[in-house]
Amino acid sequence: MGLWDDIAAIKDKVDSFILSNLEDVSNDSLKKASLHLIKAGGKRLRPFITVTVCKMLGGSEHEVIPVASAIELVHNFTLIHDDIMDQDAFRRGTPTVHTLWGIPMAIIAGDLLFSKAFSMIFKNVEGGETFDERRSMCAHLLANAINYLAIGQAMDIEFEKRWDVTEDEYFQMIKYKTAFLFGAASLCGGVIAGASSLQMDLLKDFGLSYGVLFQLTDDLLGLIGDPKKTGKPVGSDVRRGKKTLPIIYALSKVEESEKTILLDVLSGRKSEDSDVKLAISIIEGSGAIDYTRERVERYASDARKALEKLPQNEYNAKLQELVEYTISRTR
Amino acid sequence: MGLWDDIAAIKDKVDSFILSNLEDVSNDSLKKASLHLIKAGGKRLRPFITVTVCKMLGGSEHEVIPVASAIELVHNFTLIHDDIMDQDAFRRGTPTVHTLWGIPMAIIAGDLLFSKAFSMIFKNVEGGETFDERRSMCAHLLANAINYLAIGQAMDIEFEKRWDVTEDEYFQMIKYKTAFLFGAASLCGGVIAGASSLQMDLLKDFGLSYGVLFQLTDDLLGLIGDPKKTGKPVGSDVRRGKKTLPIIYALSKVEESEKTILLDVLSGRKSEDSDVKLAISIIEGSGAIDYTRERVERYASDARKALEKLPQNEYNAKLQELVEYTISRTR
Repeated sequence: MGLWDDIAAIKDKVDSFILSNLEDVSNDSLKKASLHLIKAGGKRLRPFITVTVCKMLGGSEHEVIPVASAIELVHNFTLIHDDIMDQDAFRRGTPTVHTLWGIPMAIIAGDLLFSKAFSMIFKNVEGGETFDERRSMCAHLLANAINYLAIGQAMDIEFEKRWDVTEDEYFQMIKYKTAFLFGAASLCGGVIAGASSLQMDLLKDFGLSYGVLFQLTDDLLGLIGDPKKTGKPVGSDVRRGKKTLPIIYALSKVEESEKTILLDVLSGRKSEDSDVKLAISIIEGSGAIDYTRERVERYASDARKALEKLPQNEYNAKLQELVEYTISRTR
Repeated sequence: MGLWDDIAAIKDKVDSFILSNLEDVSNDSLKKASLHLIKAGGKRLRPFITVTVCKMLGGSEHEVIPVASAIELVHNFTLIHDDIMDQDAFRRGTPTVHTLWGIPMAIIAGDLLFSKAFSMIFKNVEGGETFDERRSMCAHLLANAINYLAIGQAMDIEFEKRWDVTEDEYFQMIKYKTAFLFGAASLCGGVIAGASSLQMDLLKDFGLSYGVLFQLTDDLLGLIGDPKKTGKPVGSDVRRGKKTLPIIYALSKVEESEKTILLDVLSGRKSEDSDVKLAISIIEGSGAIDYTRERVERYASDARKALEKLPQNEYNAKLQELVEYTISRTR
């Protein structure tokens, strides 16, 4: 089986566990709103990491599915709330939850996925519940990741009003907002498999490095991605003035006249297609793309090094494949 | 010590545990927004119940404080999100979180309190963490309560557009939205104390009955409460068309001409002070106040009966006192 067959197989199991655990939501609008994004698609990369890490270390898929599903629910809860905050109208090719059900119901739908994550994490695939040390450690890891996620989201919102965000601030923000949940996904797989402390350190390195490179490739795709593949219009991050690494880098490197043009587009004062094209070419000319690619390569190398020290088997190979696939999307 | 000294003593311990666990929030706005309502006041009734139940059953206050604090954080998270949904500008005598920091930061502040609740529940007062069966059962109970809370909030939002809400629907909604968190507060005290199954059933009865009577007295105060004591303007629930028990009862009992007047005020078509006064007198004339008081008495009797079968000691007496105090507010 190739990587995509594995990803699809885990997605099936996770989705069916999630759906069965949301069956009892007696309010119809809330149920539909909560499941909307889950049903709209997504690859379930975080559960894939949790399950594959667990199996790499000899753990049981059966036992890890509830934890992997909880992590996916947390991811989806943050998407629903982030879309409200960013006033995004589309995601996964479909209108966002607040666009369809209004902001109040979207806030509750996010909250429900959040609480369902923490009731689900103690459930078993075959029914019943388990309240052992491993499950509680996973719940604690997940809650900690969300603590940081909230701080990262607050930073991101504050960055919107600023044009002097530094690279250090940017990396802090994406670690909090994106990488720590990947870190928790990797660590939870280890907890369920009963990993050693040394292995837990490596799993943390792997998860965090993968999380950062994932976000950096996302930044590249938001700038130079093929709209047919990304589902976003050309230069969408530029139009929205998002503080991504290539944009932060370009702002710090280009000369004053180019910076003025860039800021006009980033702040929305100019928004013609030709303005956006010019802005992208200025960013490219600054060396920002190469610089970001070099950073991606550095984090990929860290992720690979962590995997090298973990058990070498077919599951380890799949995690390596995931790293290579993620990088390849921006080439 | 009287009831209020005990409540104040537990509030001090819970607040200091909460504050120490939010110290590490590195984003200043987020930290202030998250702590705003906690610092603004509140009696900490839920933690009081959790701690007092635990001590009634011989459990340790030390061990239960983290769980009690987690429950209080969950309550505060729901207040922040509810205020956004209800577009409320004031709470606890101060502007609401979204009024001061905007909706995006208020959503995140609520999310942060939510995740902090689930990281806090595994912490110890003296530092370090405990991942045993009791803590995970509390986390699970709390998550389940929030699942229902979300459904209750969704029902409440849907009730806004309806004038034919039945009494059964109303009781379902307040059980989900208010009583289940009181139920979890009571049950978690039992879990930490190592209560028997029989005791857990009684604790559930006590918590749920208290939660319902708490909401019913709140409904009465929103209608006939002294504005100086409640902090709300006269007839605030009537002006906002809230579906409280007295209002639902009156709508189902009064004759058509009075119903028209009532609906004019409830829907906001008429909002002069004299209109509101007339509406309140119609509700009073329908027997709705007496009917609601009779319901309060019935749930108070259930709460007392549960307490009678639990160990008779000073802590049990304090819980009885809490029931009597809560009822007395509406007399």
